[in-house]
Amino acid sequence: MKNRINITPLTNLSLVDKVEISITEYIKQNKLEVGDTIPKEMEFSEALGVSRTVIREALSRLRTIGIIETKKHKGMVLSHPDFIQNFEKVIGTNLLGDETLKDIFELRLILEMGMIDLLFARKTEQDLVELEKIVTKMEAKNSKSTLFSLENEVAFHGKLYEMSGNTTLQRFQNLLLPVFEYVHDHKLPNTETYEYSKKFVSHRELLNYLKENNIKGFRKGLAQHLEPHFNRVLNPTKV
Amino acid sequence: MKNRINITPLTNLSLVDKVEISITEYIKQNKLEVGDTIPKEMEFSEALGVSRTVIREALSRLRTIGIIETKKHKGMVLSHPDFIQNFEKVIGTNLLGDETLKDIFELRLILEMGMIDLLFARKTEQDLVELEKIVTKMEAKNSKSTLFSLENEVAFHGKLYEMSGNTTLQRFQNLLLPVFEYVHDHKLPNTETYEYSKKFVSHRELLNYLKENNIKGFRKGLAQHLEPHFNRVLNPTKV
Repeated sequence: MKNRINITPLTNLSLVDKVEISITEYIKQNKLEVGDTIPKEMEFSEALGVSRTVIREALSRLRTIGIIETKKHKGMVLSHPDFIQNFEKVIGTNLLGDETLKDIFELRLILEMGMIDLLFARKTEQDLVELEKIVTKMEAKNSKSTLFSLENEVAFHGKLYEMSGNTTLQRFQNLLLPVFEYVHDHKLPNTETYEYSKKFVSHRELLNYLKENNIKGFRKGLAQHLEPHFNRVLNPTKV
Repeated sequence: MKNRINITPLTNLSLVDKVEISITEYIKQNKLEVGDTIPKEMEFSEALGVSRTVIREALSRLRTIGIIETKKHKGMVLSHPDFIQNFEKVIGTNLLGDETLKDIFELRLILEMGMIDLLFARKTEQDLVELEKIVTKMEAKNSKSTLFSLENEVAFHGKLYEMSGNTTLQRFQNLLLPVFEYVHDHKLPNTETYEYSKKFVSHRELLNYLKENNIKGFRKGLAQHLEPHFNRVLNPTKV
């Protein structure tokens, strides 16, 4: 099981890689917890028999991914890594490959279809009032277009993520939607001439399914609402 | 839009933070691409008016998250960041907070329910032959238990992720399943006395729905298959 998670061919490991792994193993084997102090640079250097420069580089990596932080008068302590933060940095650079970008495009569709059960189990009356306000505001702006509009998508779908009550998912989608827009605009064939096989389901109609507590209707409706996107992913030659 | 993605209160930024942001902005504004060379440590130091030590630390962070790499005779070049790699390191440490762990537990349920459309659109005859082999092997081991077994889960559900044809998702789930097991065993109330509201749906039955190309049956069956997990998440007091 461990092999599947975190294996690196031994021949490719630099000294810093090895030290990074050693320190991570040290944390695991001693069952250290958040807030616990870890040894000083010098102590690691002596125990592992490598230079302080190498130790410093390895510790710097662990600091970057959020596993350790330096506190005044306490030295280095373990901290809760931020699960999403490094994603943010990577996504911000536009350096992701096309395949990964398309995977992320699909991931958004997967997450929205997948969270329906939690959404229905957790939605509150207050949520529905707030969602209705969002829909009414969107309609007032006369946004009749069925094409993707990031602002509308974020307002409406972001609220759905919030209602599903999973904070990690919600932060994740804040990252995914801009990638989604980018891929939509630049990386997939145009669908302006796409013919809907069924009628378009609006945000208002999705809201109504939620208010009626109609999970089947919502599931079908959301699939139709997202159909142009699914179509682009699944039938890239049909435009 | 940018604000939502990557905002840090200015007062909390260290000099290294600021340099890291400056370099990232430099990459974006000059529309640099994978393989492009970036300026040397010394050049950044002079342009930004900060010490080489600070520049080195910022570059080290960008190297850690996979945005730059050092190549012989070429210096520092931009590279495809590995979307999943830093997750692996963070998850490996067991330092994630309980809330994040529970979020990840839910995320697995969300992903499996959400990928059904792609799974049915992309499954091949060869996939079904391989999945059948997995199920037959599991049955031969007489694993009648309905309780969570990581090995079985990985074999069967991992194949479903593979069949859905999304590489990022597949790598993501390789990380999620061990977290799922950990949360299952340590962080949620025991469900050994849990009474199924409907009959348990086995891996074999799910396979049959796939072979019959019965997406409705599969969707309902998978929801029942995952029901004990959904129940633990949604009704933590009922055991």
